[in-house]
Amino acid sequence: MLAADLVALTDQPPFARSAVDGWALRAADTAAASAAAPVVLRAAGAVPMGAAATATVVPGTAVRVPTGGMLPPGADAVVMQEEVEITSETVAVRRSVRAGENVVDRGIDVRAGETLLSRGRRLRPADLGVLAGQGVARVQVTRPPGVAILATGDEVVPPGVRLGPGQVHDMNSAALAGAVRAAGGLPTVLGIVPDERTAVEDALRDATAIHEMVLISGGSSVGERDVVAEAIEALGPPGILVHGVAVRPGKPTVLAAAGGVPVIGLPGNPVSALVIFELFARPVLDRLLGADPRTGPWRTVRARAATAIEGAKGREDYRRVRLEARGTEVWAVALPAGSLVLTSLVRADGIVVLAPGARVAEGDEVEVRLWG
Amino acid sequence: MLAADLVALTDQPPFARSAVDGWALRAADTAAASAAAPVVLRAAGAVPMGAAATATVVPGTAVRVPTGGMLPPGADAVVMQEEVEITSETVAVRRSVRAGENVVDRGIDVRAGETLLSRGRRLRPADLGVLAGQGVARVQVTRPPGVAILATGDEVVPPGVRLGPGQVHDMNSAALAGAVRAAGGLPTVLGIVPDERTAVEDALRDATAIHEMVLISGGSSVGERDVVAEAIEALGPPGILVHGVAVRPGKPTVLAAAGGVPVIGLPGNPVSALVIFELFARPVLDRLLGADPRTGPWRTVRARAATAIEGAKGREDYRRVRLEARGTEVWAVALPAGSLVLTSLVRADGIVVLAPGARVAEGDEVEVRLWG
Repeated sequence: MLAADLVALTDQPPFARSAVDGWALRAADTAAASAAAPVVLRAAGAVPMGAAATATVVPGTAVRVPTGGMLPPGADAVVMQEEVEITSETVAVRRSVRAGENVVDRGIDVRAGETLLSRGRRLRPADLGVLAGQGVARVQVTRPPGVAILATGDEVVPPGVRLGPGQVHDMNSAALAGAVRAAGGLPTVLGIVPDERTAVEDALRDATAIHEMVLISGGSSVGERDVVAEAIEALGPPGILVHGVAVRPGKPTVLAAAGGVPVIGLPGNPVSALVIFELFARPVLDRLLGADPRTGPWRTVRARAATAIEGAKGREDYRRVRLEARGTEVWAVALPAGSLVLTSLVRADGIVVLAPGARVAEGDEVEVRLWG
Repeated sequence: MLAADLVALTDQPPFARSAVDGWALRAADTAAASAAAPVVLRAAGAVPMGAAATATVVPGTAVRVPTGGMLPPGADAVVMQEEVEITSETVAVRRSVRAGENVVDRGIDVRAGETLLSRGRRLRPADLGVLAGQGVARVQVTRPPGVAILATGDEVVPPGVRLGPGQVHDMNSAALAGAVRAAGGLPTVLGIVPDERTAVEDALRDATAIHEMVLISGGSSVGERDVVAEAIEALGPPGILVHGVAVRPGKPTVLAAAGGVPVIGLPGNPVSALVIFELFARPVLDRLLGADPRTGPWRTVRARAATAIEGAKGREDYRRVRLEARGTEVWAVALPAGSLVLTSLVRADGIVVLAPGARVAEGDEVEVRLWG
């Protein structure tokens, strides 16, 4: 992620170049040329590759030039070598050549002073090429924000530990760490905290002291959400900004801040946690990164609903779908709505967002936000 | 990239769980319940979070259970705590509860023995959650293939070096290194080789000895393509498989192999080099990675052409476009066709592929392959 605008230092290309292997000439000299009456020019040397053109094109002459070679002074066009007949001293041109033909003008790609890449740009391979073309070997990029990841829940144990009765493995920490990393953050998995106010508060206080963002995914014991909310509130102002969102899956969400550090309480359920991450945590992370919002994570495709899809009542519904090509059309197959079905995220290609109570009929066009 | 299929070791969830905070009961006990005539059950204990359910539900009783808690033996449904009236010893249920209500059955997400994730899968955040849910803390992944990147061209100098007259900076090595890394390979930039057969041959021989794939982007001096082709051919069988492709941009492409190592000669021009990378090098890299082809790089969106687009004559045309939202529609704005304009890749959101000589009219629907 670029930390500052990148302004072009030099024109790109830095000089007028030939686009082909051929002969640089003055277009006006060839105005009368035809297959029946070729114009014969004097061969007046060659432009070496990777060096200044020393030969000059004067009326009635042509200079050999390689692809990418510098257009010699006096020339305004290049004719391809396949199109001419040469002897050791002459070049016969059998058609009239247009001024500018096969010439790549100086600065046609980039002009010095132009903003080439903006601050917050997530650098792509072509961008690296553009930087290299400017001679830039190093750029200042944003430091990835450190994101602490906590989980609570008395039933939750880390992967790698054998389950006792009634226990489940912590899925959220691994999934959220992957999501943070993919979004450009630097995740630190701090592990599982007992479902107890002081333990959660202590863990959050430590986490907010040395990270730029904290994610805590709740367990699901009775009243557990309150433990997390109380612990967050105890960290000091501004505290909880939002407690509960009208979203399925993901209702029990806490959006808060402790001093300048955003703290997000995510649902314990892994599908909900990942949806809420995309919806609320990723934009915060983008902000911390200084990311250009246009490079956001969700690209959309249009598809037809393979079955009717019922939205949740009173809540915006983020329904996972699988995409399927049928002939030239793309169809969206809705996956199970149940938020406990994590495999619905593994199989999902994207998300369809339904307004509260909305219903999509089979065959209707839907917009699918691509996922992951 | 998973190196082997991941088969589920355990059912997910590993036991029947409650989806809500409430009371586990026998649905049959509530068949006659109504607001006017609630059924009163005896409160017979509670299921602790993260432990086995010790209390059993016998007819006429209910056991308190937290969200995610184990369904106690004897129960077949859970009623939400908000829906009941409790005393210290009783639970009054005011409606009939359906069998299975608020119960998450064992194995509903994943069944032991089922293939959860297939070999070649590019692991996504949700996949990491699924692995963690199975208690899996480590998995075998594919070793990223080492890809050597060479550039030739007497006019080409590395970024960071001041340009002499007629010289340009090497854009391809940086752009291709980024593209290789994004595709899951491990790039090594070997630098610029003089445009001379023995130098190119020596560099390629060294590169093929210790890398799993070699990319060499040509300079553009006269006959340079032949130097690279001759050098590749000298490496031994099978040698050159394809020399020249009917693609714009990217005609001067060499597809070859030296022993078991794929060697791809890419055009010197950076736009062409990146298009040819996507078209020919990335699928080879995917193959080396053992990648699932369904997770390929190009997702497509449908858009309307903002202007007419003329395809190249006799060649498949990979035309860069920028996407623009206009109301609810997506429009594709064609960027300059000239392959020297690298900024067309920086501004591009995707590629429209045109058959040789094809013409798209303004307003026609086109399929755009998302880029980068």
